[in-house]
This record gives sequence, C-alpha cells and structure tokens, in this order.
Amino acid sequence: MKYRFTNDYSEIAHPRILQRLLECQNEQNIGYGFDVHTENAVKHIKRVFNASNADVYLLNGGTQTNLTVISYALKPYEAVLACDTGHINVHETGAIEGTGHKVFTLPNTNGKLTPNDVRKALDIHIDCHMVKIGMVYVSNSTETGTIYTKKELEELYKVCKENDLYFFVDGARLSSALSSKYNDILPEDMSSLCDVFYAGGTKIGLMAGEAVIILNDKLKKDFKYHIKNRGALSSKGFVLGIQFEEAFKDNLYFEMGKQENELALYLSSELEKLNVKFSSKVETNQVFIILKNEIIEKIASDYGFEMWEKGDKESCIRLVVSFATKKESIDMFIKDLNLILNK
Amino acid sequence: MKYRFTNDYSEIAHPRILQRLLECQNEQNIGYGFDVHTENAVKHIKRVFNASNADVYLLNGGTQTNLTVISYALKPYEAVLACDTGHINVHETGAIEGTGHKVFTLPNTNGKLTPNDVRKALDIHIDCHMVKIGMVYVSNSTETGTIYTKKELEELYKVCKENDLYFFVDGARLSSALSSKYNDILPEDMSSLCDVFYAGGTKIGLMAGEAVIILNDKLKKDFKYHIKNRGALSSKGFVLGIQFEEAFKDNLYFEMGKQENELALYLSSELEKLNVKFSSKVETNQVFIILKNEIIEKIASDYGFEMWEKGDKESCIRLVVSFATKKESIDMFIKDLNLILNK
Amino acid sequence: MKYRFTNDYSEIAHPRILQRLLECQNEQNIGYGFDVHTENAVKHIKRVFNASNADVYLLNGGTQTNLTVISYALKPYEAVLACDTGHINVHETGAIEGTGHKVFTLPNTNGKLTPNDVRKALDIHIDCHMVKIGMVYVSNSTETGTIYTKKELEELYKVCKENDLYFFVDGARLSSALSSKYNDILPEDMSSLCDVFYAGGTKIGLMAGEAVIILNDKLKKDFKYHIKNRGALSSKGFVLGIQFEEAFKDNLYFEMGKQENELALYLSSELEKLNVKFSSKVETNQVFIILKNEIIEKIASDYGFEMWEKGDKESCIRLVVSFATKKESIDMFIKDLNLILNK
Amino acid sequence: MKYRFTNDYSEIAHPRILQRLLECQNEQNIGYGFDVHTENAVKHIKRVFNASNADVYLLNGGTQTNLTVISYALKPYEAVLACDTGHINVHETGAIEGTGHKVFTLPNTNGKLTPNDVRKALDIHIDCHMVKIGMVYVSNSTETGTIYTKKELEELYKVCKENDLYFFVDGARLSSALSSKYNDILPEDMSSLCDVFYAGGTKIGLMAGEAVIILNDKLKKDFKYHIKNRGALSSKGFVLGIQFEEAFKDNLYFEMGKQENELALYLSSELEKLNVKFSSKVETNQVFIILKNEIIEKIASDYGFEMWEKGDKESCIRLVVSFATKKESIDMFIKDLNLILNK
Repeated sequence: MKYRFTNDYSEIAHPRILQRLLECQNEQNIGYGFDVHTENAVKHIKRVFNASNADVYLLNGGTQTNLTVISYALKPYEAVLACDTGHINVHETGAIEGTGHKVFTLPNTNGKLTPNDVRKALDIHIDCHMVKIGMVYVSNSTETGTIYTKKELEELYKVCKENDLYFFVDGARLSSALSSKYNDILPEDMSSLCDVFYAGGTKIGLMAGEAVIILNDKLKKDFKYHIKNRGALSSKGFVLGIQFEEAFKDNLYFEMGKQENELALYLSSELEKLNVKFSSKVETNQVFIILKNEIIEKIASDYGFEMWEKGDKESCIRLVVSFATKKESIDMFIKDLNLILNK
Repeated sequence: MKYRFTNDYSEIAHPRILQRLLECQNEQNIGYGFDVHTENAVKHIKRVFNASNADVYLLNGGTQTNLTVISYALKPYEAVLACDTGHINVHETGAIEGTGHKVFTLPNTNGKLTPNDVRKALDIHIDCHMVKIGMVYVSNSTETGTIYTKKELEELYKVCKENDLYFFVDGARLSSALSSKYNDILPEDMSSLCDVFYAGGTKIGLMAGEAVIILNDKLKKDFKYHIKNRGALSSKGFVLGIQFEEAFKDNLYFEMGKQENELALYLSSELEKLNVKFSSKVETNQVFIILKNEIIEKIASDYGFEMWEKGDKESCIRLVVSFATKKESIDMFIKDLNLILNK
Repeated sequence: MKYRFTNDYSEIAHPRILQRLLECQNEQNIGYGFDVHTENAVKHIKRVFNASNADVYLLNGGTQTNLTVISYALKPYEAVLACDTGHINVHETGAIEGTGHKVFTLPNTNGKLTPNDVRKALDIHIDCHMVKIGMVYVSNSTETGTIYTKKELEELYKVCKENDLYFFVDGARLSSALSSKYNDILPEDMSSLCDVFYAGGTKIGLMAGEAVIILNDKLKKDFKYHIKNRGALSSKGFVLGIQFEEAFKDNLYFEMGKQENELALYLSSELEKLNVKFSSKVETNQVFIILKNEIIEKIASDYGFEMWEKGDKESCIRLVVSFATKKESIDMFIKDLNLILNK
Repeated sequence: MKYRFTNDYSEIAHPRILQRLLECQNEQNIGYGFDVHTENAVKHIKRVFNASNADVYLLNGGTQTNLTVISYALKPYEAVLACDTGHINVHETGAIEGTGHKVFTLPNTNGKLTPNDVRKALDIHIDCHMVKIGMVYVSNSTETGTIYTKKELEELYKVCKENDLYFFVDGARLSSALSSKYNDILPEDMSSLCDVFYAGGTKIGLMAGEAVIILNDKLKKDFKYHIKNRGALSSKGFVLGIQFEEAFKDNLYFEMGKQENELALYLSSELEKLNVKFSSKVETNQVFIILKNEIIEKIASDYGFEMWEKGDKESCIRLVVSFATKKESIDMFIKDLNLILNK
C-alpha cells in the first residue's frame, strides 16, 4: 500500500496535538471534563463560534454524539428528519433507532436537505398514528462532500423554528466545510444558524473528539447526566480537553481544514487533466470520481479508497484528503493512475 | 494542590504508552479496529489470558463497556444481578437501565457478591411478573478495593452455569486486582472463570480503553455491530490498539498494577504508624481511612481525595494510588498529615 | 375450588358494565378513543375528580399505564422513586426499565413512601454519575392494602413540587382506596394532590381499563402520540369508553369499592372471631392473615388465595374481596376454615 | 351519518362473542391467560392452523403485538424489513423504533414485499456500520387489501431461511385474507409458511385481541415474560380467551371474513355499474376507489370512509366492509352515490 485515501481518520493526530499531550503528561487533572484544559477548550470554542451562552461538551465520536444529542432532544414518539444519505440513516448500525427514535428520510438534493423537504415531512405526518417530526438533522459538509450555504441553513432553521422543530447540524467535518473556498459561513455565524451543532475533531487531526455546542436553552438542562447515561462521559475528559484547547486556541482547527481542501482541489485539478469523470463537484476534502472497473482494480493494489457505487463496467470511488495528506502522495497517485490509464 | 489521590485516572498515560503513540504518528492505519496494532493487541491479550478462542474488542470506557456487554447478553425482560455497591448500580447514571434492563441488587459482602446471593436472587424471581435474572455482574477489584479469590469466582461461575446465567467480570481495575499480593488468580485463569470480562486500561495508565474478552461463544455473534449500535466503535480504533499492544506485549499492564498496589501498601503502613483507622483492609490501590472531619478539612486544602462516607464527627475518605504516583508524594502526604494530626 | 379470593380480577365485569356493552352492540363508533362514549366518560371523570382542565385517556392495563406515563415524564437519565414493595419495582417484569428508566427504591413504611424518603433519595443522588430522581410513584391503595391519608399525599406532593419532581399516583385500586372507611380523601381532592394519577377499572369491575388523569400541563402535549408509540392505543377505544361512561355516570365506580371494602371488613371481623392473626390492618379489600402451613394446605384445596410470605411453620396469605364477592362465599370460607382449625 | 365504511373496527363485537361473554359472567377465572378458556382457545387455534407445536398467546392489539414480537426476535443492532406501506413503518408512531429497532423499507409491489426485495436489502447491508436485517415483516392481507399467494409466502420464507432471517406475518386481517375468493392458502398451511404470525381478532368481530402463533422454537423461550415486560399481559386474559375460544371453536373466525369479503365484492360490482374507477383490484374487505373531490365531499356528509390519497381534482378513498356490514347499508350507499353522481 503506497497511500490510503480511504478516509480522513487514518492517522493518529496532528503533530501539534500529540506534542501538546506530551507536554501535559506529568499533570494531574480532574476527571470527567471538570479540568482546566476542558475549561479552556470550551472558552476558545465559544469565542470562535460566537456562542458565549452556549453549553459545550466534548464527546468521543460521531455516532456517539449523534445518538446522545438526538435522544436528549426527542420525546419517545418523535422522529428525526434526515436526507436518505444522512450518516444517522445509513452508517450508524441503527444507533439512533437504538435509542428509540425513527429516522425519517427523504431523498437528498446534492447530499442536502431543503426547507421543502421539511415541509413535506410535516405534511406527511398528520396524526397520532404517525411519528411526530421533532428534529431536523443535516451534516455540513455532507456525506457526499457538499456544503450548505449560509442562506440554506438560515432557511432550514427558519422553517424549523416556525414548526417547533429542533435543528441539529452534524459537524463531523465542520472544519472542512467552513474552510471550503465555496463556503460563505463564518464560524461566528454558526451560533445563529441552528439549535445545536458539533465541531468534529476525529476527522480533522484529533485522536478523537467531537465538541457539542448547545445553543438552544431547552437542550441544556442536565445534559452532562445524559452524556453519562449514554456511556459517553470520558473519565479522562482532559485528554479531549487538551486536544480541543490546542486546536481552537489559535486557528489550527480551520487551518487543517483549509489545507486538506486545497489539496483536494489540487487532486481534482490533476484528475481533470487525466480526463477523469467526477460524480460531483469537489467542494471539500472528498473527491468522488468514476473509473472503469479494471482501472479501479489496478490502483487498488497500491492505494486505499472507498468503493462508493459499484457499477457493471465503471464505478464511483471516493478519495479523501486528510489533514496529514502531503502533495507528494497526490503526485505519486496521479502519476500511477496516469500510467494505468495509458497502459 | 500538592497531590491528588482522588482516583487512578488523573494522568494522561504511562510514558511508554505516550512514547509508542508518538512513534506511530506517521502511520496510516485502517479504521474501526481492523488495523494491525489492534490485531497485535488482541493476540497479546489472548496469550496473556490464555484465551485463544476468545473474541476481543477494544472500547473506550467502563460505563460504555458495561452497557454494551450487558445489553448484548440480555433479552428485554432479563435483569443483571449486582451487589448494591456495584458500579452499574450506583455510578452509571442509569446507563444499564437506559438500555432497557433492570439492575437487581443485593447487599454486598465486603464489596462482593456471593453464590448464595445468586441463589437468593433466583429464589425471589419466580414467575413471569418479575424480571428473569440473566446475568451476574461483579467487578474485580471491587468498588471498595477488595478482590475476589479464585475459589470465589469459580463458585460464582458454577452457580451461574447451573442456572443458565451469564457471568460477567468488570475488570476496570483488573490489573490492580491480579497484581495484588493477596490475589491467587493468574491471568491465564481468567478464561475459565467467567463468560466475559474486561481488562481495563483507563484506570491503569492508558489514555482510555477497556479490552473486552468474550469467552462464551453465545456472546460472540455480530458483537462488532452491537458496539457500533451503542456508539462505542472508535473510528481511530488503532489509537486503542497501539496502547493495548504496548501494555500487553510484555508485562507492562500488570507491572503498573503491581507498582500502585505496593505503594498503596506503603501508604497504608505509613498511615498505620500514625494510628489512622482503616474502614477496610487494603488489598489493591484504594485506601479507605477514617479521620475526624476537621482533619479532613485541613488536608483537603493540599490533597485531593474522595469523600466516601460523611459522618457527623468523623468520615471515611478514599485515597487512590495510581500508576503514576511516586513514593515522594506519599511521603509528603504522610508528613503533612502527621503535622495536622499533632497540631 | 369453592371460591377464589386470589385477586379482584377473576370475574369478567360488573353486570351493569356488560349490560351496557350489549346495549351498544349495534352502534358504529369512531376508533382510537375519538368516540362519544369516551367523550362522555372523560366528562364524567373530570367532574367526579374536579379536574376540568385535566387531559384524560383510557388505557388497557396497569403495567401498560405505568410504563406509558413514566416514560413520557422522564428524560433518559432520570429515575422514578418508589418504595420497595411498589408494583413497578416488583411485579412488572422490568417494564419501566424496559423503557429506559431506573426504578430507585427505598424501604416502605406500611406499604407507603414518606416525604422523608423523597428527601433521602434526593440526598443520595448528588452528581451526574448517578441518575436524577425525576418522579415519585406511589399507589393508593398500596400493594399491601393500606391507604394514604390526604395529609400524606399533600406532604408528598409538596416535597415533590419543592424539588421539581413529578408526583404520580397509581390508582389501580383507587376505587377501593377512596371508598375505605378509613379514607379521608374525596374524589374531588385528587386533582390537587398530584401531577397525574389513574383510576383503575380492571381491578374493580371493568373488563379492562385504566383512566389516566393528567393534571400537570407539562405532561399533556402529544400524550396520545405517546400512547400509540407504546402500543397502548386501542382501536376499539369506545369499548373502554362505554365501560368508564357507565362506571362514572353515577356512583357505580365507588359503590363497587365500598361494597368490597365492607365485605373485606366483614371477612376480617369473622376471621378475628376465629383468633386468626393479621399481618396488617385491613383498610381496603385485601386481607393479609397468618396461618400455620398445614392449615393453609388444607384450605387451598377449596379456596384460591395468594401465598404472600412463606415461612417454615406459618405463612402469610392474601385474601382479596372483589366487586363480585358475595357474603355467602365469605361465610362458607369462614365455616370451612373454622372446621379445619378445630379439627 | 348513515353508515361508516371507515374501518372494520367500528362495532363492539359479533353477537356470538358478546353472548358468550355474557354466559361466562358469573365465572371466576385465573388471571394472566392461565385460565381454561385461553387453554381451549389455544387448542382450537393450534388445530385450525395445524400448529400442534406452536406456542400461542393472546394479546390486545396490533401495534402491541408487532412491537412485542419484533423486539423479542431482534438483537439491538438488527432491523426488520418491511415494504414502505407496511403498518409498522407508517402507522405505529415509531413503536418499533421505540423498542430500539430500525424498520428498513423498500418500495412495495402491489402492497407486497418480494423475495427480490429481501435479497436487495441484504445486498445493501454489507458491514458493521449498517444494521443487520434480522426479520422480514409482511401483512396478509396487506395495507392495500391485497393478499399473498401461497407461493409468494413460500418463496419469501425460503429466502428468509437461506439467510437466517425470521419471517413474521402480521395477520391483523388474516381472516379476511384466508377467506378471499382469490386466496389459495389453507389455514393449516400457515404453520409451514413463516416463523411467527398472528390471527387478528380486533378487525374481525372481537372486542379486541390478536392471537400470536409462534412456530419457530427459537422465538418461544420466556415469551410470556416478554409480553409482560412490554405491558401487554392482560390481567383478565380470560376475556381474550373466551372470545378466541368462541371464534375458533367452529368456523366463526373465517365465516366473518368470508361474509365481509363477499359483501366487499358486491359493493365493488355495484360500484362498477356506476362506472367508478378503482385504484386496485378488490381482493378482500377493502375497496379503494377514485372519485372527483366534489363527489367525495358530498358523500362525506352521510358516509364515513378514509381519505387515502388526496389529489387536486380527484382522490382515492377507502371503503371498508366489516363483519357487521349489511347488504342494506351497501345498497343505500350505492343509491345515494348514484344520485350524487347523476345530479
């Protein structure tokens, strides 16, 4: 294996993150997120996202965060609306349903959910024999690497508020989304665009960690109890605290996103030169291309990637650029692909 | 604060663990525990515990592990039996019940459960209007620092097998338990003493991590699906893998336990010299002593510990020695306590 | 078998209930409780309990009602407090835990919970590692046939309100409780004594049915959705509606309770004449007596009853008088018992 | 309102059912389904369905039965497959998800699921990040009144067995399905066509009740505990027992289905004469027709029915014929509709 474009969580962590952990190794810290590093991380996160009244908690992983937030917000008869490609629908082994809630889905539009989808979902659910939609879930960037515009989130949040629905933004790849050259959302906008969101760390250079930012007061009471109840409260919460402190004390969090986005664009421009087909526009760090199956087979011996949609003759594969990806790896890949294509 | 005896998870990790993470920082690894470090860790763990047929999974934390194992093993109408001081009963914010299962408790005997308790629990639950006991849960070492003898576990497992109950040993502090000078259980005995147990890392020098060792074939099928369903599958599973690989490739895992136990005994012998009363015998790394409330107040300004049982005049406090505790910290504490006692 | 004193649900229904169903057999009614009979039943129930602002729903059975109410009221990390003998703790096969909530128990006082118990439970649960008590559950009459005084309920509700806890009265045997000669609670008092209660029908002459009366506005929103979600919404809700309409349109509901209580007192006075020991004072329709085991064996061939507490030489049995019990059955039993005692 | 074709549960019960209850009103019966009537009912049901080894339980309602069976059969990470119109997907307010399980759906074929759908669902769910399909759910008759052929069920069961999936047939309207003139399944075939099914009573002349017939031994152990755990165990189980005893002691159960099917065909042939359009073929007791919206509005003042699919100009409505529907009601409806159509 020469290089893995399989995902953005193949490396332990950004060197600064690891270095910072080393520096703190002789400290004694209070458990369960009551430590000073977590306190600092929370302070930085509130500042960056302009969310001085928010409650912020550091959890370990995405599925864990999704199930913890959603099961807190919803009554037992309530469902969360997502688009069909939503992570909570497809890739969490029924974790949301495992907490007792239906994930109601509608077909995606370029990986995204629209205000009309929300209205449609509400129109469908008309009486007590059907679930009530209680929350709308989107991820930014989406599962297909696309991003929401500020206007799109505003309109989604508006229709949510009009209909007494919570609006939840899964930001497992928020760094990449807000660092995209196509993005028009400032970090400080986030606090007025939804009820709760998270800034993912696992997929952008932290060993693990998702920072949940709760904006709506109704979602705040006793949230830490709920985290523990879901098995999501880390004894050594300070390990998360140290990492988020480092990522948010300056601009590291978004620099990592910017870097991977730029390299993804570089990769895409190089692929264009090879006349490779794209299944969607590259907006963040995920690149979806279509290749003949025999080509895919050949590059698979040296490079890692995910099979996205298998076809009879050609298939769509996903290449992910991470915080740790170097230009050299991309160049090597392009060179090898070129050789294969022209053999 | 001069030193915290609050718990055994106040420090990030043992230097060897951190060093090993650093060495691996430029690697790319496969996600979700399918990596080579996890593979090695599993190999070492199977060897150490003489469990070649076991299925081994690395999870993040204790509550998470308990709820994942228990909710896998039990049918909805089944309960888990624990003693009243059991971690799952008292200190997990209803996490087990959160997965749908009653924790049925009986009074502890020196922090432990006895075969007679199991029989009593079965005698109480006689028809379909009551839960069925489906699993017996103990922790070794226990919440009060005591340990089970080999015979005690054997007899518990025997009564479990006779009654078609699963027997689950919470080993959040297994290192400390099996390294106690009072212990007669070899690591390689564990594979014949229960259906499933875990070797905790969080409380003995890992950043996080609990290695679940599943011995009973009935608990193996699709367990990884279940981990994901509970939000407990780490994307960067290799971070756990690297740590457990390091801890189990030689004897580090048990050396850390041995060291903290010996220092706990040293602490206890020094306390004895000060004529301090103990609420229980020191068998592992937890020391429970009784002091006058005014003494406790005074040492609290310089030392961390947990208030265990508050009384009107005197109270019981818990001092925990960790893998990172140094003899000097204990000496300093003893010296300061001596001064306070003799003021 | 000459007669069963086993419980108060051995007969189909009171003749008036059955008669009323017959009269309605040619009607067509709207499903799911939107029918006119349910509407009338609700009207009567609100009038009788002085609960004009209440929301009232008719469910099928007690366990179903308990789990539906409790799982609506609590957040996932919240527990319900009950005394150890509470029905939800002992006799519902983990149904409450099945919805995700711990039942935290304290020892009963004469079958009852006290304000001090509530305070004690709150004192024990002090941080986010433990469940939060969110609701207090009592039943009136209790599992041991005792009843709460008005003052006792007032004080319990007061301590609940002071601590932001819901107060829930399981009234599976409310008819019997409020018809006791020792009772000082008027039906119209109920609306100011708790947040939610139910008036049981199954144990007092209806084929099935529990009328949930929700007083606290916070427990009202979308409750019908929740009923359906729990599988507790009857298609033919009007069958429940007709029965409750009949039971509450005049005083039938309480007359049945009064009658069974009086006969229970008659039974108890006759037993006293035979010098039988009582394990508790007879306040409602349940009579707990202590007999030698060989006596119990002999009467068991002709009479049904429940073994309450088995002892080596003598045991406590429970005799229940139902709405359908006739004085003749009691006289026959007393006569036969007398013969056995004097053999 | 002249007549309701709204559903098949608008009347209390068939006269024979009510009569039988009356006859038993002076009996004392054992609670919780341990009575002799339930015993007889079970005996008759086993005989009728040729299921001598089955375990049979009587529950109250359809949603309750579905959630009880499905949550028994599945592990937490497992999902049930249904077609998009499946009752458990659309009309149970998230009750299945409420027990922790995803309902995975694929588009229906004439209201039905096909073996290819099962294969497709299995093909989609390929790794531990997705739920495992653990059960296949169909209803016969379906939500749109269609029925499965024997071959269709055989092939579905075959593909289930090949893939270690449970096959569950929701028979809320089994009487109507097996009494259809288009049906080729004998009652005695049922025991070899699935792992578990139920014979619904609520929608065919019983006050309430669904008889669950468990064929697969793996679904039998402690099922009664599970019923209680789900709040579905009736204290007065004998009320269900008496009804099912009466319905199955001779052919009443299927006679009621046959009668309503024949009248539905009569209704449909009369509607044809009026040149009314049908949205699907009438196979059982449900008739789906398409009318102009102004026509629908007019008949709505005198007749009850369900709006099935609302269109701008014309809409689809559902007319249901029940066990209690009389030819005269149909004639009156046809006459009135004719007048409206020709105005």
